[in-house]
Amino acid sequence: MSAASHVNRVVPEAEVIVVERGPHTSYSMCGIPFLVGGVVGEGRDLVVRSPEQFRRAGVTVHTRTEAISVDADARRVRVRDLAAGAERDEPYDLLLVATGARPVVPPVPGAQRYAEVVHTLAEGERLRARLDAMEGDARTVVVVGAGYIGLELAEALVTRGLDATLVDANSQVMASLDADMARPVEEALRRFGVHLALAERLEEVRGEGRACREVVTDGGAYDADLVVVAVGARPAVDVARTAGCAVGDSGALLVDPTMRTSVEGIWAAGDCVESTHLVSGAPVNVQLGTHANKQGRIAGLHLAAALRGDEPPAGAAFPGVVGTAVTKICDTEVARTGLNEREARDAGVGYAAVRFTGSARAGYLPDAGEVAVKMLAERGTGRVLGAQLVGTGNVGKRIDTAATWCQLGVRVQQAQLLDLAYAPPFGGVWDLLAVGARKLVRELGLSPQL
Amino acid sequence: MSAASHVNRVVPEAEVIVVERGPHTSYSMCGIPFLVGGVVGEGRDLVVRSPEQFRRAGVTVHTRTEAISVDADARRVRVRDLAAGAERDEPYDLLLVATGARPVVPPVPGAQRYAEVVHTLAEGERLRARLDAMEGDARTVVVVGAGYIGLELAEALVTRGLDATLVDANSQVMASLDADMARPVEEALRRFGVHLALAERLEEVRGEGRACREVVTDGGAYDADLVVVAVGARPAVDVARTAGCAVGDSGALLVDPTMRTSVEGIWAAGDCVESTHLVSGAPVNVQLGTHANKQGRIAGLHLAAALRGDEPPAGAAFPGVVGTAVTKICDTEVARTGLNEREARDAGVGYAAVRFTGSARAGYLPDAGEVAVKMLAERGTGRVLGAQLVGTGNVGKRIDTAATWCQLGVRVQQAQLLDLAYAPPFGGVWDLLAVGARKLVRELGLSPQL
Repeated sequence: MSAASHVNRVVPEAEVIVVERGPHTSYSMCGIPFLVGGVVGEGRDLVVRSPEQFRRAGVTVHTRTEAISVDADARRVRVRDLAAGAERDEPYDLLLVATGARPVVPPVPGAQRYAEVVHTLAEGERLRARLDAMEGDARTVVVVGAGYIGLELAEALVTRGLDATLVDANSQVMASLDADMARPVEEALRRFGVHLALAERLEEVRGEGRACREVVTDGGAYDADLVVVAVGARPAVDVARTAGCAVGDSGALLVDPTMRTSVEGIWAAGDCVESTHLVSGAPVNVQLGTHANKQGRIAGLHLAAALRGDEPPAGAAFPGVVGTAVTKICDTEVARTGLNEREARDAGVGYAAVRFTGSARAGYLPDAGEVAVKMLAERGTGRVLGAQLVGTGNVGKRIDTAATWCQLGVRVQQAQLLDLAYAPPFGGVWDLLAVGARKLVRELGLSPQL
Repeated sequence: MSAASHVNRVVPEAEVIVVERGPHTSYSMCGIPFLVGGVVGEGRDLVVRSPEQFRRAGVTVHTRTEAISVDADARRVRVRDLAAGAERDEPYDLLLVATGARPVVPPVPGAQRYAEVVHTLAEGERLRARLDAMEGDARTVVVVGAGYIGLELAEALVTRGLDATLVDANSQVMASLDADMARPVEEALRRFGVHLALAERLEEVRGEGRACREVVTDGGAYDADLVVVAVGARPAVDVARTAGCAVGDSGALLVDPTMRTSVEGIWAAGDCVESTHLVSGAPVNVQLGTHANKQGRIAGLHLAAALRGDEPPAGAAFPGVVGTAVTKICDTEVARTGLNEREARDAGVGYAAVRFTGSARAGYLPDAGEVAVKMLAERGTGRVLGAQLVGTGNVGKRIDTAATWCQLGVRVQQAQLLDLAYAPPFGGVWDLLAVGARKLVRELGLSPQL
């Protein structure tokens, strides 16, 4: 919708047509756990701009309409009106594919029937309504998948008074963290009352009639009045594939930095596209609203320029990602950027890692709290490869400093001497990330060792 | 003491002698307002390492001993034992001057007699003891000087139940912020109960006997059972001057990046030295523990290398500063880096500035709060010149990202596309600083305009 808005605004003579499977446009996917937990009042609070608002601005929006296939030679999209069941063709001059991702449902008995996925706002609203209706009746819930969304949902469900168990086949929560950094997150979840069933593989979801009863893993069985699955999502590339768009090693659509696919006249943006990881150089598919939004704007600039026959604006290129992510789980902020140890090994990068604990406030202040810090740098050069922060207090957004270092190729020798902010409510005279850089300089035998 | 510790550790055969005017070593100056306010229990909580601890490690520490002058040819320091009143010479091979800064007391009648300064831990302890003794008796206090320390002290005194008035000759608090960014800080102070007497020049402090009674300005008169002056400090360069050390335009000691003064065998570090502002290129004297600490370490590396006849370690150079600072005033976090508008004008840099308000959390979450953001970038190039952040929530340490941009010469065209962290508890899909960068790209007519 970012691209659609831009084209609609700067090329008013163009007819901008949007085809959307669901009933909503432009909403905060990341806000859905807050809707489920009741922190956000209702679904429409998460909507940034409704179909009606887009229509009033002059964009043609077909909701509850699914794109089925694309004929790139004839330049038309086959679509299905989901309410009427009727199919038709929508012709185009230029096409943007923004099909997002489809949540994975584990292929085990009962999962498809009993498990909820909460990927779209409509699904979030449905789960919220179900929880509201079950109020008092539902006692137990199992969340399958201990990634960001699974953790946020488990917290939301405990907040609503449910007894929540988090099941994951991995032996830690949050695979994007190293195991030693996932520990404090697991402790925060346990303190909050979430039961962890880690290193357990889902085998079956059992129920009676329409009602879920139990979740069975290879390690146990758990009562479940409700099962929510959040094991990730795969880039939705099927429609673009019918047009012949190439798919990269990550399973997402190949695009150049201007968001152009391999097929003439077709651009793509958002959760369905592949990006370059700027630290490892590897192709990755990172599903995050902040990337989708930037990519949408860049695609919009190029679509508008192409429609008008203009040169594309200078520098309108998506640079890639460094895997920055942040969340707040219970009282604990969790943030990461760049490569973790597993990713560094996979990328074949020689690295050193340091892990230590510090505080987000001066130690002599009350409630100084504790922050676990982990940082990686490249052997030889000292290039910052990644950082992970887990702790209470003002911790999460500090990752942006390390993200900038990762994206710009800053070295720990320089990072340790940057003019970072100091005052007692925010830590010690040496910033936590500067401490990490200093430790890495020593660990790597570089100079100067301050 | 950072330098002393390093030399003592790596050159065990060296005799390291420290001469200190006060009774303490290595404490948190920035923690003093918390001691005054009672958040920190007692002075020793702020001490990182006591003279006795240094002595046990093998450093000779003479406390309550003042350095008076230096004979650089004879390589000796004239010192006075403040308890005994006796003078003597301390010989040296290499000398580090870390004399800090001396608080300014306005030259008006009564100020010297009645006003407290709170620059050292001993002074902080004295004020704390006086407040404890006056408990119940003292009603009113005037704080002269609306900089970081003055604001923190005013907050601390209100917390203790005193009626506090903040007087400053400037028409805004915090001269390091632009006036439009100082407004929300002033509002936070007023909400907290601090009276502001801005654009008023101190004329007299009146009292009877030992007791302070009233503060008179050119705009009014204020009851005052206590007056605290915090109008800044001047680099203490008198001792180094006796050795012939050159002083720069900022009034602080000239040093090269290895912390060497203009006189052979003499280094200097901390609040008494001049640094280069890396955005404006101007010489500045920034009195902050985080710089002092880094400079001390760098000086220590060079002193140790010189003592052993080694080559100095590669890259052991203080790069300069970008004027990063942060504080928390009442419920409001205040942070700045780089140049504000006045500084940009003084530096003769062509710039554009944007100011807007956003939120440190997603707007649909409760208590989203408000953050005022101001950013400056250079005309033509788009180089980030500075940023100011004022608001509630996790705001303060976000300045480090902008500080990194300022120090590395990042341009707004690039900054807007960096992979910064996003999740609803931390803001919108576009990070506040990225929004500022985007707005500046437009304002400056650069590309791409996302």
